[in-house]
Amino acid sequence: MKKIDFLREAMHRHNVHACIIPNTDPHGSEYIAEHWQALKYFSGFTGSAGTLVVTLRDTALWTDSRYHLQAEIELQNAGITLFKEGLEGVPGYLQWISSKLNEGETVAFHDTLFPAHKLFFHKNYFWNQGIEFNSTIDMINEAWTNRPPLPKSPIFIHPEKYAGQSATDKIKAVRRTLTEKHIDCLLINALDEIVWMLNIRACDVEYNLTCIAYLAIDTEKTILFIDKEKVSSAVYDYFIQHKIMLKNYTDFEIYLQNIDKQTIWIDEAKMNASIYRHLNADNIKARTTSPIQHLKSLNNDTQIAGIRLAAQKDGVALVRFLMWLEKSLNENKSPLNPLKGTSLTQTDSHPELAPFRGLGVESPLTELSIADQLHEFRKEQELFFGDSFATIAGYAEHGAIVHYHTTENTNASLLPDNLLLLDSGAHYWHGTTDITRTIAVGTPTDRQKRDFTLVLKGHIALAQAVFPVGTCGYQLDVLARKALWDDGLNYGHGTGHGIGYFSCVHEGNHNIRPKGNAVPFEAGMLLSNEPGVYREEEYGIRTENMVLVKNAGKDGFLCFETVSLCPIDKQLIDFSILNDNEKKWLKDYHQRIVKELNKFLTEEEKEWLKKQAP
Amino acid sequence: MKKIDFLREAMHRHNVHACIIPNTDPHGSEYIAEHWQALKYFSGFTGSAGTLVVTLRDTALWTDSRYHLQAEIELQNAGITLFKEGLEGVPGYLQWISSKLNEGETVAFHDTLFPAHKLFFHKNYFWNQGIEFNSTIDMINEAWTNRPPLPKSPIFIHPEKYAGQSATDKIKAVRRTLTEKHIDCLLINALDEIVWMLNIRACDVEYNLTCIAYLAIDTEKTILFIDKEKVSSAVYDYFIQHKIMLKNYTDFEIYLQNIDKQTIWIDEAKMNASIYRHLNADNIKARTTSPIQHLKSLNNDTQIAGIRLAAQKDGVALVRFLMWLEKSLNENKSPLNPLKGTSLTQTDSHPELAPFRGLGVESPLTELSIADQLHEFRKEQELFFGDSFATIAGYAEHGAIVHYHTTENTNASLLPDNLLLLDSGAHYWHGTTDITRTIAVGTPTDRQKRDFTLVLKGHIALAQAVFPVGTCGYQLDVLARKALWDDGLNYGHGTGHGIGYFSCVHEGNHNIRPKGNAVPFEAGMLLSNEPGVYREEEYGIRTENMVLVKNAGKDGFLCFETVSLCPIDKQLIDFSILNDNEKKWLKDYHQRIVKELNKFLTEEEKEWLKKQAP
Repeated sequence: MKKIDFLREAMHRHNVHACIIPNTDPHGSEYIAEHWQALKYFSGFTGSAGTLVVTLRDTALWTDSRYHLQAEIELQNAGITLFKEGLEGVPGYLQWISSKLNEGETVAFHDTLFPAHKLFFHKNYFWNQGIEFNSTIDMINEAWTNRPPLPKSPIFIHPEKYAGQSATDKIKAVRRTLTEKHIDCLLINALDEIVWMLNIRACDVEYNLTCIAYLAIDTEKTILFIDKEKVSSAVYDYFIQHKIMLKNYTDFEIYLQNIDKQTIWIDEAKMNASIYRHLNADNIKARTTSPIQHLKSLNNDTQIAGIRLAAQKDGVALVRFLMWLEKSLNENKSPLNPLKGTSLTQTDSHPELAPFRGLGVESPLTELSIADQLHEFRKEQELFFGDSFATIAGYAEHGAIVHYHTTENTNASLLPDNLLLLDSGAHYWHGTTDITRTIAVGTPTDRQKRDFTLVLKGHIALAQAVFPVGTCGYQLDVLARKALWDDGLNYGHGTGHGIGYFSCVHEGNHNIRPKGNAVPFEAGMLLSNEPGVYREEEYGIRTENMVLVKNAGKDGFLCFETVSLCPIDKQLIDFSILNDNEKKWLKDYHQRIVKELNKFLTEEEKEWLKKQAP
Repeated sequence: MKKIDFLREAMHRHNVHACIIPNTDPHGSEYIAEHWQALKYFSGFTGSAGTLVVTLRDTALWTDSRYHLQAEIELQNAGITLFKEGLEGVPGYLQWISSKLNEGETVAFHDTLFPAHKLFFHKNYFWNQGIEFNSTIDMINEAWTNRPPLPKSPIFIHPEKYAGQSATDKIKAVRRTLTEKHIDCLLINALDEIVWMLNIRACDVEYNLTCIAYLAIDTEKTILFIDKEKVSSAVYDYFIQHKIMLKNYTDFEIYLQNIDKQTIWIDEAKMNASIYRHLNADNIKARTTSPIQHLKSLNNDTQIAGIRLAAQKDGVALVRFLMWLEKSLNENKSPLNPLKGTSLTQTDSHPELAPFRGLGVESPLTELSIADQLHEFRKEQELFFGDSFATIAGYAEHGAIVHYHTTENTNASLLPDNLLLLDSGAHYWHGTTDITRTIAVGTPTDRQKRDFTLVLKGHIALAQAVFPVGTCGYQLDVLARKALWDDGLNYGHGTGHGIGYFSCVHEGNHNIRPKGNAVPFEAGMLLSNEPGVYREEEYGIRTENMVLVKNAGKDGFLCFETVSLCPIDKQLIDFSILNDNEKKWLKDYHQRIVKELNKFLTEEEKEWLKKQAP
C-alpha cells in the first residue's frame, strides 16, 4: 500500500475529506528535522518549501519558483498534481481545496504546524466557504509508519570569544526590552532565536546548528524546555552559571496552561497556533516580532571580525577549488575525449555517449565530485565546523533548478561547453558563509555572457547602494533587477536573505525581496546579494556575495560592505555592456581579494589569483 | 477667550483630559470641506495632513515632512508644540498622550473621524496604558462656535463621452465582483469612489470635484445618500435613468441599522468607525479595499485619450506662461533695479531693500501674480474647469516648504538670483493634470544645478523604468532617489501619487513611495513622477510629470509613458553628470513636446519652444 493510502485510511476513519501538510515544524523552521519531514515522506518532494494537500481522490503539491523544476522531476509518475506558485492563474491551495470539497465536508490541518495568524486565516477562509475544519487531530502521526523520533543531538556551548556577548548579557538585554514594554514574559519557539540567546548550539537539523526547544524569559526566570538527555554535565553547569532553568521539552504545554504571568509576548508570525489552545489568550499583550530577532540581527564587533575572517577562509578554499577545477578541466581536454565540445543536452540526444555520463572515466568531474572537493578545501580551514547547506552544483540545465540537489541519478559530468552554478557555504565557529559563483566550463555563448553580465550589473548596483537609515530591503531589491528587467528578464527568488552566525544560513527577518519584510536596515546586519537568471533546460546563472550593512560615512546614510572574497569568472563578462563605474567596481573588488587572501596563499595560488583580474 | 479654551471648557464638562483632532472628514478625505476643518479652526495650521492633540494644559500638533516648515511658521506664538513626524526621536501622539495623562484619565476622539482599523488600534493602545477613552462625544461640534454648515454645491453629470463608461455599466461591473465574492452589499463612504461610480461631480470640497454622500450597492439596488437639495430635476432624471435611488445623507445611519443583507463589504481602511456602531458586525464579511478603487484606477481608452489631450493643453498653457515669465523677468533686469543680484535671503538681511519686497514696482512679478497669470493661460484652454489644487509658487526659500501656500503676507517677489518651484494642475472635463517645474530666476549656482540634475536623473530613471507585471510602486521608488542618495541627499515625500480623472488630484491606492501600498501596477493607471530636493531656508527643487502605466511591448512587462509636456529648464542642468542615456531621454522628450504642442502654438511660441531644446 502507498504511503498516501495510509493517510487516506486515517482520513476515512476521522471523516476528513482533505488534509493539508505544510513543510515545517512546531518551531516555524525552514529546514526541519526528519521527524517532521512529512511532506517529503508522503510526496517524495525534497524541496525546502511546499505544501501538500491530499483529498480522498486527489493529491496536489504547491511550491515556489525556486523549486518548480525540481518538483516536476521529483513528482514524475507520483500521481501528484504540481501547482507552481507565482505563475499566473495558479490557484492557491485554499482555493483548490474549496473547489474539491462540498459544503459541510472537513479539512484537517494540525495547529502545531501553522503559525497562529495563518491558522486563523485558514479557518476564516473555510468558514466563509461553508467547509468544516479540524486543527487538532494529528493525521500525519497516525498515518506515518516508522516515523523517525525527535532528534537527540548533544547541546554544545558557543564560546563567548566567538559570540561576542555572554548569555547572561543577552538575557539582560531582553529583560530591558520587556520592562520598557511592560511585558512580564516572552515565549520563544524559533530555534535560531533560542540558540543565539543562550550561546548554545546542536545539530538537530541537518546543516542548521539548532536544537529542538522552547524558551520562556520572564522578569526573573529563564526556562529552557528541552530533552534533558541532550545536556551533558558540562553544559548543565553552564546553564546553572547563567541561571537558565531546564524543563522537559514535552512539558511546555503544561507550563503554558499554568503560566501565572499577566502580560505575555509571543511572535504571532512564528509561534505555532497550538500555543493559543494552551494559553489564556487574554494574557497575550504583544504579538509582534520577538525582540530577540532584532538583537540577533545586529552582529557585534566580535562577530563582524569573525564574519570577515570566515569570508577570507571561504575565499582561500574557493580560490584553491577554482584553480583545481580549471586544471582538472584542462586535463580532460585531451583530443581523445569523445565528449569534447558536446553539451549535456547534446549528450542526451546522443545516446551513444550516454555511458560516459557520470562515469568519471573520460571526464571524472561531476557535480558530486566537485562538491566533495570543495568540501575538502573548506575542511582544511581552521575552525571549520561543517557545510552550512548542501552544496548546489548545478551544471548546464541543472543550474536552472534554483535549489537543485544532486543525487546519484542526476549527477552530471562537467562536459564542455556550458555553465556551472556553484552555491555553497560553511559554518566556522566565527561565522557562517554563503557564496555562489557561476563558472564557464569550455567556451560560453554570447547569450550566456550577456545574461551573466546583466546579473553582474544588478549585483554591483546593489553592492554599491547608499541608502538612508530606515530603508528596508524591499526598497533596494529593484537595484539588483533593473538591468535584467530592461532586457525583459527576471528571477523568481528574492535578491537577499539574512544570514545567521554559526547557526542557520537563512536567518532573520531582514531580507531584500520584492515584497520583503518592513525591517529597516541597521549597521551590523548580514545579508546575501544574489541576483540570477535561469534559462529552463539550458543553464542557470547566479552571483552571490555576503554583504554587511555599515555606516556610509555620510550623516544618516548606510551602505553595504561586500565581505565575500572570490574572483568572478571574467570569461563570462561582456565588458561592452558594463559602464566605467561597474568596471571600476570589478577591478577594485579583485584587488581587495588579492590583498586580503594573498597572505594565506602559496606562490602558485597567488599567481593564479592575479591572472583572474578582470 | 481663545478657541482652544472653548474646547477645554467642553473637556471639563465631560471629564475628558485629552482630545484628538485629526484633519479629515467621515469620508476619509485628504482635502476636506470647511465644515470639518477643525484642526485649522483650533490651531491655525493650514496644511492638509496633521493631528492636533489638546490636553487640559498642553496643545501639540503632529505633521509630516511636507509641512514641517509651514507648520513652524503658522504655529509661531500659538502656544502649540510642533512634533515633526518622520524625524528621529519624535514621539507619536499616542505615546505623547500617554506621557501626559494619568491612568484612569480619559481621552476623546470621535469615531466618525477615524477609519475603523485606526480607531481599534487607538483603543487597544490606550487600553494597554490604562487610559480611558470615549469615541462617541463630539467635542469638536460642542466647542466650535459658528461652525460652517455642510457644503451644498449642486450635483452635475460627468458625460459619458468624457467618462468612457456609463454609470449603469460601472454598477454592473461592481455587481459582477459582488457575485463572484458572494457579497450581498457594498457600502462606500469614499467621495472619489462615489462620484466616479455614478459619473457625477460637485464642488463640495475646494479643488476636488466630489460631493458629500454615502453609497450602497447591493445585488438589486443602488442607493445614494445625499442632501437632496443638491439634486436638480435634470440630475434627478439622470438618477432615475440609471436606477439610482436617493435617500437623505443623514439617513445613512438608520439605513445601516435596518440593513437586511447578510454579507456586507466595507473598506476597513477608509470606512469610518461609527459605521461599526450602527452595523451588525457579524454581517461584515469583507473588509478589504473596495472593488471600485481597482476599477477606477484603470483609465479606459476614452480617458487615456482625454488625459493625453489634457496634458497637451496644460503644455500649451505652460509654454505660454514660461515664455511670458522669461520676457517679464528680462524686462525687470533694468540696471536701475536696486535689487538686481540680491536673493530673497539677502533682501531680508538688507532692511533698506524691504520696501521693494512684494510691492511689484521694480519687480512686479510675485508668487501670487505669476500663479494668477498661469491660471489665465490655463483658462484659455477649451474644456478647462478649474485648477486641480492651489498652485504652489515657491520662490527661493519658500520652495523648500513642500506644500507651500502663498498668502499676502508671505508673497515674495521674483528677484534674481534664485529658483522658483511651480507646482500646478488643472481639471479639464477630459482629465486632471499635475505638473511641477523648477525655474531659474537669474543665474543659478553650481550647487543648485547639481541638485537639480540629481533630481532630474531620478526623474528620468523612473520615467524609463521597465518592470514585470505585479510590481508595486514601493519597489520602484528607489529609482527616483538613487542619484540623490549617492550624494547623501533625499526628500521626505513620496515619489508619486495616483491622479484622479476630473475629480481629485491625489487619488487611488496606487502610488510610488518608500513604504507604499502593495497595489500592483496595471496598464491604464495614472501617477505622478516627482522627485525633489529641499534646502531649508534656501530653495526647493522638484520636477514632476504625470506618467501612465502601459504595456512595455515585452511579454509580461509594463512601463511608463510620460504624458506631461513641458520643457525642463536647461539652465539648471549640469550636463557633465548626465550619462548618454539620460541626455538622449531629455532630447527625445523635448522633441516630443515640440511635435505634440506645435500645432497649437503661434510662430513666436514655436520659436521659443525650439530654443528650449537641451
